[in-house]
Amino acid sequence: MKLENLFYPKSMAVVGISKKNPLSPGRIIFVKNVFEMEVKVYGIHPEGGEIEGEHLYTRLDELPEIPNLLVIAISAEDTLDYVQACADLNIPACIIIGGGFAEIGGEGIKRQKKLERIANDNDIAVLGPNCIGVYSPPLLDTIFMPTERLTRPPKGTVALISQSGGVLVDQFFHKFNEIKIGVSTAVSIGNRAVVDETMLLEYFSKYDKNTCNIAFYLEGFKSNTSRKFLELARESEDTVIIYFGGISEQGMKATKSHTASLSGNDKIISAAIKQNFIVQPRSELELLTYLKLFDVLSHKRKPFDFNTIVKGQIAILSISGGHGVLCADLLKKYGLFGVEFTEKEKKEMKELVNSVARNIASFDNPIDLTGSARDEDIENIIQYLSKIERIECIIVLILPYTPSISFQIGRRIANRVSIDKKPLICFIPYIQKYGLIIEALELSNIPVFHSIEEAVQAVSALRILTRRYNFKQRK
Amino acid sequence: MKLENLFYPKSMAVVGISKKNPLSPGRIIFVKNVFEMEVKVYGIHPEGGEIEGEHLYTRLDELPEIPNLLVIAISAEDTLDYVQACADLNIPACIIIGGGFAEIGGEGIKRQKKLERIANDNDIAVLGPNCIGVYSPPLLDTIFMPTERLTRPPKGTVALISQSGGVLVDQFFHKFNEIKIGVSTAVSIGNRAVVDETMLLEYFSKYDKNTCNIAFYLEGFKSNTSRKFLELARESEDTVIIYFGGISEQGMKATKSHTASLSGNDKIISAAIKQNFIVQPRSELELLTYLKLFDVLSHKRKPFDFNTIVKGQIAILSISGGHGVLCADLLKKYGLFGVEFTEKEKKEMKELVNSVARNIASFDNPIDLTGSARDEDIENIIQYLSKIERIECIIVLILPYTPSISFQIGRRIANRVSIDKKPLICFIPYIQKYGLIIEALELSNIPVFHSIEEAVQAVSALRILTRRYNFKQRK
Repeated sequence: MKLENLFYPKSMAVVGISKKNPLSPGRIIFVKNVFEMEVKVYGIHPEGGEIEGEHLYTRLDELPEIPNLLVIAISAEDTLDYVQACADLNIPACIIIGGGFAEIGGEGIKRQKKLERIANDNDIAVLGPNCIGVYSPPLLDTIFMPTERLTRPPKGTVALISQSGGVLVDQFFHKFNEIKIGVSTAVSIGNRAVVDETMLLEYFSKYDKNTCNIAFYLEGFKSNTSRKFLELARESEDTVIIYFGGISEQGMKATKSHTASLSGNDKIISAAIKQNFIVQPRSELELLTYLKLFDVLSHKRKPFDFNTIVKGQIAILSISGGHGVLCADLLKKYGLFGVEFTEKEKKEMKELVNSVARNIASFDNPIDLTGSARDEDIENIIQYLSKIERIECIIVLILPYTPSISFQIGRRIANRVSIDKKPLICFIPYIQKYGLIIEALELSNIPVFHSIEEAVQAVSALRILTRRYNFKQRK
Repeated sequence: MKLENLFYPKSMAVVGISKKNPLSPGRIIFVKNVFEMEVKVYGIHPEGGEIEGEHLYTRLDELPEIPNLLVIAISAEDTLDYVQACADLNIPACIIIGGGFAEIGGEGIKRQKKLERIANDNDIAVLGPNCIGVYSPPLLDTIFMPTERLTRPPKGTVALISQSGGVLVDQFFHKFNEIKIGVSTAVSIGNRAVVDETMLLEYFSKYDKNTCNIAFYLEGFKSNTSRKFLELARESEDTVIIYFGGISEQGMKATKSHTASLSGNDKIISAAIKQNFIVQPRSELELLTYLKLFDVLSHKRKPFDFNTIVKGQIAILSISGGHGVLCADLLKKYGLFGVEFTEKEKKEMKELVNSVARNIASFDNPIDLTGSARDEDIENIIQYLSKIERIECIIVLILPYTPSISFQIGRRIANRVSIDKKPLICFIPYIQKYGLIIEALELSNIPVFHSIEEAVQAVSALRILTRRYNFKQRK
């Protein structure tokens, strides 16, 4: 079953275009792709005519060419006729938007079984039903929500596969846009009657050059597929991340009625997941932090030396005592440790900072340079810490509120890191007027986060990444 | 010791104004208060002259009046002379910005002891040393960071007391501004040599009309004060919240060098804290969620009926299955429970939604109305749920991405709540273009949050608030 027609079709057709209701899913999908995307689109309507100036064909077999993809946005009852038409006309892929299949039980289960049979017998890559489809910019976007209602993520290295359309457009699209995590392709799998998470993992890890990280939102694996999934994840060059919903009893009950997914035993495989290098974030914040770090460090320009594994020995550099304390508190939660400085090291660091700060600063870990610190003090201390081998990563907490920190601080830290290549994570408050500092770091692919907890989570993600990198290198 | 001179002085004087360095703390404080705040300010400089067009007096006893407050922003060595001058001239309050006291050990400890003696012998309310002072808008702002570098919170009901200046301007000011939590007065206590958290709790809970909620960032109680603090908290009409730093071993070590605070046993009083109705958030996110909820529900217009205690029986209403699942997962983490619906209730709810959604929606808890839900479906279901007595709070997850949700949805929910008075928490993605929906809810004081976890945390906060309310009513 060839999946690339779902993501890179030369042409596609849409059925379910309402002439009366401009908000009908089929119409939104058709118009959106005609005017906003690059794919060649054909609209189908039994009466023909036109919509928003675009010609509509009455039947699939009337089209000037056989499209590679059919998007079906009609009632469940009529959907199978169109899937059969794909079989008859050799259309190799289709996306079924509507619900009314296994998730409603009874008649719906029978309908879905029939759908599976037609698809498998005729080798049609069917996505859905009960899904919002594919976002594969700049070519194609079958999400039935008007573009002006969405916020879309920038182009990047993360392939997204979600069992929930809502989670795809909200936790993934909206939040990715906010914190600038880049996406290669996004897929909503809905009931995953035919195309499932395992097939997509194989496709993206083996065949999609743009993808370096593959993120899933799942409410359980599809029945009998978890073994294959784990094997693929083990072999994959890409980072594989799964965020699970429905892990509590209450959530599991909800899962059943939602996308007819099989949960239960298949889900309790955390140990297996760890062995197979699958990253499993425990919260939405952790998910986003991990993906941000993985995406940033997948770019061509690598800010750090990856040959040393980050096991957990951390130095914290702050100019606010409270921030240092809160950061130190969080290390334990993420299995990290603060290194101890020797008296000699403390004395040497003290010599490196300006005379006002020197007398009130603290050179234990976390280092607190106080509000009297200047740019050069921070740069000097980073340089010093970079040379201490037992420090695997530096967390720098920058608060540009104090008058002696200049807008050069981002660029200065970036320059320093480009020389020493020591892993370093920055915290800077997310305030528009500090954009210049943040951008200087981001352009150098130094990971920047906007809460202390995210900065600590990022070190935990870096630990996963360096372990994985060194494991893959040894193979 | 009268503290109001720290927050509401009729006039104040500033020493430590540098003529050469426009970034010196004393000069920033002086100029900021002259041009941005309402208090009458006098600048002191041994040479006299002027700065930015403002006259400088050579000595304190040369001022046309005895000020109520002196801000001292000079080196530790020279500070005590000015505190003695306060004693001699009957200046009842002073704020000491500089470090170089107990936090540096040795000589600093002696210096601080001497400071305490002068202050206590002469009944001077000394704030600090090693602090950033007071923000009491529109009168006064002694924060030595230039205003253009800060983001300030709106005016509201929360009094802030922080042992760390960095935490005050970042976690409190910046984040409060972002999520619109209102502040009455903010105080940085630094080494709290004289004025401490207990005195401030007493002041704000007994004497400050503008304050309804008192939030602390502490790295431990000041020695021998925790018993009095707990007594005051128990008696207080205001909600008392403490966010502790330095709770881990690593963090505790950091605390010592930072504000010379005594931690250890005094800190291990969680049980005592609970008995005294002190709210103790476990993370920065939880802190902000609690304060947002407390601030919103302290306004004159009360959206809910507070007579029923929210114990934990929740209904979740969503239009995205995945969001419902993730929300259900989080209930357990916060000690909440999803109610079960009877078959009769499910059938009745089904009758209340449009015919397309009806066939694919799920009426278990969490309710998933699907992307086909319209405004009136959501309103009808909220009305239905409001009448079910065993439901104590409704969490509504609104995703305006789908075309059938209109921009009226916020106002419609607000109207509904204003009739039924059932506690209700809304989740809506924080996207600028959804501002109209968010604002309609916020104007009616319905708590709105922008992640699922925050919405669940807010219910947990509401539980604390309704328990407290009913406890105070019974007394």
